[in-house]
Amino acid sequence: MTSPIVRVAVCAPSTPITRDDADRVLGLAAAEFPRVALEIHPQCFESHGHFAGDDGRRADVLVDCANDPSFDAVWFARGGYGACRVAEDALARFAHVAESKTWLGYSDAGYLLGAFYRQKIGKPVHAPMVADIRREGGEAAIRRTLAYLSGEGAGLEPALDHRPAVAFNLMTLAMLCGTRLMPGLAGHVVLVEEVSEYLYAVDRLFFHLTAHLGGIAGLRLGRVSEVPENDRPFGQGAEAIARHWCDRHAIRYLGRADIGHDAANKIVPFGAN
Amino acid sequence: MTSPIVRVAVCAPSTPITRDDADRVLGLAAAEFPRVALEIHPQCFESHGHFAGDDGRRADVLVDCANDPSFDAVWFARGGYGACRVAEDALARFAHVAESKTWLGYSDAGYLLGAFYRQKIGKPVHAPMVADIRREGGEAAIRRTLAYLSGEGAGLEPALDHRPAVAFNLMTLAMLCGTRLMPGLAGHVVLVEEVSEYLYAVDRLFFHLTAHLGGIAGLRLGRVSEVPENDRPFGQGAEAIARHWCDRHAIRYLGRADIGHDAANKIVPFGAN
Repeated sequence: MTSPIVRVAVCAPSTPITRDDADRVLGLAAAEFPRVALEIHPQCFESHGHFAGDDGRRADVLVDCANDPSFDAVWFARGGYGACRVAEDALARFAHVAESKTWLGYSDAGYLLGAFYRQKIGKPVHAPMVADIRREGGEAAIRRTLAYLSGEGAGLEPALDHRPAVAFNLMTLAMLCGTRLMPGLAGHVVLVEEVSEYLYAVDRLFFHLTAHLGGIAGLRLGRVSEVPENDRPFGQGAEAIARHWCDRHAIRYLGRADIGHDAANKIVPFGAN
Repeated sequence: MTSPIVRVAVCAPSTPITRDDADRVLGLAAAEFPRVALEIHPQCFESHGHFAGDDGRRADVLVDCANDPSFDAVWFARGGYGACRVAEDALARFAHVAESKTWLGYSDAGYLLGAFYRQKIGKPVHAPMVADIRREGGEAAIRRTLAYLSGEGAGLEPALDHRPAVAFNLMTLAMLCGTRLMPGLAGHVVLVEEVSEYLYAVDRLFFHLTAHLGGIAGLRLGRVSEVPENDRPFGQGAEAIARHWCDRHAIRYLGRADIGHDAANKIVPFGAN
């Protein structure tokens, strides 16, 4: 009795990865996850200024992966920045078959996960990406996503409950607010994490975001990591900031979440679990 | 025939200034602008973590300046970050007399200027602040605001025309979108400037902001200065970014604006001129 092979396309709607990183992930998948068949699109290695190819190229490859009926899932290679430039145009070209797919990524890929969730296109999943192989202990992150694709639930964020949930990078969700890509989040538990932002910038993002989150079930704070040192201390930590702004908007602060820009980043399938 | 004295309160809703900077501005005003009477509130020198006093203190002093009938104008000492934490609470305590005042500042003070403009409280004006005395050539910036307060129009942004205008820091305006402080900008020429942000972050802010600016008369781009060097070039400049996102949202791109985080920063009174 064997489960069917899960066929997974890897593409890069934001920034490129190296062939070396791709090879390490392919090797790990082949050795340990025989039921996951990864196909890494060569666009993942292309470069155009900041991006993994220009807007047209990144959109085309995303559409090709989405509309190819031989793929069960699309795994985003890396974040960085750039998915918001292609999301709307690409989605307009998605075929019906895209609606059966699982989409995996986080950070900048959140623009796509959010847009898919808004339009009920398949299953968006906050999960480690191919580029995470570079992190210290990064193999654990890659194994978590591959295990999830193999049908295992061990890598799920432990606080997930019966309520629908989403997980986003704080900056990404703040930038989504009010745009055509923003999903409705009423009744949802919203998990956010941040990396490499000053605490005053985290505070500013919470000012903005919480003004848009009326009606959510509550907010959980993931890790806020690699905070740069400012010319003076901010005066309160990330959790106090989150509580402050949740209070102001009568949003329930539900505690910490086990997500972040790190190898321990857990999996959050969007919606009801 | 002499004009009346213009009495100006200086307070710091964001971050503190030094006594030395205040003294230099007081000296310049006394020597060259005898019709401007500056009163620098001691709260401008206070410090609480990142801020010039805690939220309650900064709000109290702003309210005191706003509600004191002896002041014709309130000049914000410095930006940085923090005005968005006190704006809503302070405004709720403004007396009728606040509606006759002129409010001057830019950068982080834009949260207040925007909120005042939304609520039709006096005359918000994008203008150099006390802390600009520190810049190279900063005396010219200070003179520009003091001359404007003296009734001279020479420091006005040169492209202003019959259409109502506003000017904001790009980040500040992006964060205002969708909050209770955001003014309606239909029919307005919107001027934006930015400092110390990567070009990918400028692009991200334009993605967000232009989704909220439907119905404006057009956008002008001020200076985008002190752009940090990234690990690779973005691939397009700030003006190409502005044009890209204006195009996507059918916003008229009207060209450059003579504003920015520098000594040449010109004056933009909000509304019809």
